[in-house]
Order: sequence, then structure tokens, then C-alpha cells
Amino acid sequence: MRRIALKIAYEGTAYAGWQRQENGPSIQQSIEDTVERLFHEKVSLMGSGRTDAGVHARGQVAAMDLNHPIPADKLLLALNSNLPEDIRIYQVWEAEADFHPRFQAKRKTYEYTIYQGPVCPPELRRFVWHVPEALQLSVMEEGAQLLVGTHDFAAFRSTGGMNLSTVRTVEKAEVFAENRRFPEGKLIHVRVTGNGFLYNMVRIIAGTLVQIGRGKLRPDVISEALLTGERNLLGATAPAQGLCLLSVEYPVEPDNPESRKKCENSEDFS
Amino acid sequence: MRRIALKIAYEGTAYAGWQRQENGPSIQQSIEDTVERLFHEKVSLMGSGRTDAGVHARGQVAAMDLNHPIPADKLLLALNSNLPEDIRIYQVWEAEADFHPRFQAKRKTYEYTIYQGPVCPPELRRFVWHVPEALQLSVMEEGAQLLVGTHDFAAFRSTGGMNLSTVRTVEKAEVFAENRRFPEGKLIHVRVTGNGFLYNMVRIIAGTLVQIGRGKLRPDVISEALLTGERNLLGATAPAQGLCLLSVEYPVEPDNPESRKKCENSEDFS
Repeated sequence: MRRIALKIAYEGTAYAGWQRQENGPSIQQSIEDTVERLFHEKVSLMGSGRTDAGVHARGQVAAMDLNHPIPADKLLLALNSNLPEDIRIYQVWEAEADFHPRFQAKRKTYEYTIYQGPVCPPELRRFVWHVPEALQLSVMEEGAQLLVGTHDFAAFRSTGGMNLSTVRTVEKAEVFAENRRFPEGKLIHVRVTGNGFLYNMVRIIAGTLVQIGRGKLRPDVISEALLTGERNLLGATAPAQGLCLLSVEYPVEPDNPESRKKCENSEDFS
Repeated sequence: MRRIALKIAYEGTAYAGWQRQENGPSIQQSIEDTVERLFHEKVSLMGSGRTDAGVHARGQVAAMDLNHPIPADKLLLALNSNLPEDIRIYQVWEAEADFHPRFQAKRKTYEYTIYQGPVCPPELRRFVWHVPEALQLSVMEEGAQLLVGTHDFAAFRSTGGMNLSTVRTVEKAEVFAENRRFPEGKLIHVRVTGNGFLYNMVRIIAGTLVQIGRGKLRPDVISEALLTGERNLLGATAPAQGLCLLSVEYPVEPDNPESRKKCENSEDFS
């Protein structure tokens, strides 16, 4: 039995989310069903974490056990030829037998994208939150910096999350405008890297930073919410379609034996 | 009766094209029907030209006659609130009574977009032609430059075009890579500005430049085709979804009285 790891991109628009479920198609099910159709093996795909309905990914990582001896590069081609076009496999590699995409994830990066302008360009509508009001980026950036560090993020969680601890470390938080030009508007990205995220945490961060950018909340509401755990100090949860899981990182890069060797010799990961 | 001009963006994916037709929904019909529903007036929308099924626009210009006295800015809001999200009105203005978006168009710019890389990012699939093979941009650019000038473009036309003359002037042709980063791939744009285009002309240009970039055709096949009118010297017609009508220009900018005044005094447009 081989443990196969996958790096996956998807547009979440047509899906009820990553995880297999009763009430709609899921990315997990789509890939599992395609593997079964191709190789007549029932597999169980473990993701690095769930994404909600409408949320996208450019670097989801998942793993499955497979008996079939197809080489990794051929498996990538076979999957991309048989999956729907809104799910693409970017990489396939042989992982360690105990590789677990969720438990071993060291760091994740999410990006939340806002279109700020009077009319949302039609080609962007599935990938952005359209905010017509002017946004002041400097105060949004100021608010984002207050997230960095190890804090209790209880206020930045929707009910429905099942995590016992609400302490997480945000390593990096950025707010920046993209230089692509649009009529009377611009794309603003909120990019957050951390060791883990609570349910809806990035969407609550985005909803709050937009209220800060509109002048409806002051940046230090973030510090206050971190101290008090009060969800209602913050902005509304931003809509799903602006969110994208950019990347998941692991202590050892399972697809790169050189980096693995380096990491195994490094004290950082001992 | 007022003549109202519109600047329109649309994602063509769900449409059988710009023009009202039997065999599917069109952008023209969608806007005409919305106006009728809102103002109980049957209008006829004249576009600057048709776009085919699956082709997009960021700057289509159209005009219609309307009796209803709603101010232009309110009309823009009313249309955007009632149109499907894949059609957006960017501007509405009062045009001269004789303004004709097609006959008076002085210059159009089309952009054809190619994703060059092994796997097409799912969020791009409706807006690009996916070319897995490596492309050499310098020879594509060399080929593009041979299009510039006044030529008989008979070879760059699909059957179905109804134009009597096939002489057109290409004022500018560019091939450039976008600096957004994607896994092992890049976006390549072919942008062509001219005084008019034959049926499928830009898609045949794109299909030919890709064959040149792959080393399957030499750049001077363009000159040869311009001289001989031989369609079969060129590459296949590139797929519709990579094409976008970027802008249409007029001798006088109908939405800008200042530029109109300037233009009327200028010998360029006398």
C-alpha cells in the first residue's frame, strides 16, 4: 500500500465544500470517486482541513492510500483528464507511510480578496467580496498587524467550530492592493499565515478589516476582541467566495527529498 | 426620445453571443428584456459589433432609444440591480441623437489570453486558452508586428463573415506575459488594436501566433498569408473563451463633453 500525497487547486463555487457530505457535491467525493472509477479501489482522502461551500483553494494538500502501482506523474495526468475542470491536481508524490496532511501541517496561508469599486467586474464575481465603499488601506494594515502573535482567537470563531483550544499563532498578516487595473476599482488582498485557523476565522478577520477600512471600527478593536473573546465587537463574517486556501506547509517537504534530508538534520524540526 | 449609450462588461460563458437569437440566451436580449421589465418600453440595443458564444467583453459599447426620463446615473444603478451578475454596466451617458456604436467606431482593442503551463488553474479556465506546450514569446511578438498596417486580411477570416471588403488597418499588436505568478505556468496576452476586425480574425491571429510560439510555423507565415489570402497557411481558430473585447473608441468621446469639444476643433476628426 502506498501513501500518495496530492497538491490540489479548486474553484469552490459549485461545491458544498471540501468534505464529503449528504447535501451536495464535495471536492473530496469528486476526487475519491474519480480514483475509484479509474483504479477500482475505494480510497479515503484526508485533507489538510475542510473548506466551506464556495471557498477556493490553490494549494490544498491531501493524502490517500492506493494499491495500484501507477507512477505518480501518470496518476497526475489520469486524474486531471478525468476530474471536472474546476478541480485540478498540481502535484502528486509518494509520501511517508505515516504522512497526515492535517496533523502534520505546520503552517497555512489563506488569502481573502475584496473588490473595492462601484461595479464588480463580471469575471471576478466568483472570487471576490464586492465592497462599493472606499477603504483606507493603512488602517486595515494597522489592524492586521495586531493579529500577529500567539493569542486566544475565541472572538474570531463562528459557532460550529469544534476546536477545544482557541489559541493560535498568526505568523504574518498583510493587506495589499493588486496592481491590475479595473474601471474605478481595485483588488485588495488580506493574506494571513498561521499555525492553524478556527472555523470562519479568516472570514471574520476580513469582515472586521473591511469595517476598519470603511471607518466603522477602529483598528484596536482587534486587540480588544483578542483580550475579551467578544465576537460581537467584530465585523460580520465576510462571504465565502472571497476566500482561498493558498498553501499548506509541512516540517519536511514530502515532495522534495533534498529538503527532507536538510530538515531532518535541522534542529528546528527535531 | 433620448439616445442612451452604455459601456458594458460581460462574461460570455453562459451566452450564445452578443446578438439576440433563437438558439440561446444573448447579452443583447438580457439587457433589452431588463429595460422592458423596468420601464415598460421595448428597446432595440445596437452594439459596436457582435461577439460570439463564450467571448467576453470589458468595454462593449451599445446604444438604445428610451422615452423614460430616468437620469443616466440612476439608470446605471437600476440596470446593475436587475441584470444577471455576469453582465455589468460600467457607464451610462446621454449620446447624440445620431450616435451609432457600430458605424461610428473608430478603433477597437481585443485581447486574447493564453495560459501556458502543464495544468490550467481552475479559476482561469473560462477566460483562457490552455496551451501546455512551451511558447517562445520573441517569435510570437515578431509575428504580431507583421500584422501592423493596412492589409487585406482575407486569410484571417472564417466563413460566415459578411464583410464585402477584407482590408483592415491594425494599428498595434502586442504579445506580453503577465507578471502574476502561477504554478509552473504564466498568462500570455495577445492584444490587437485596429479600425475593424473580420469574423474570427483575432482568434485566427491567436491560433497562428501560438503555432509560431511552439515552433510549428515561422513568423513570416503572417506576411505570406496577408499577400496570398490563403487561410490554410495559418493556425487553427483559437477557442472562444480566451477572447475579450477590451474597448471601443469613437472620434468624440460621447461621455466627455470636454474631449468632444477638443475633438471637434481638431483636424484629426474633421
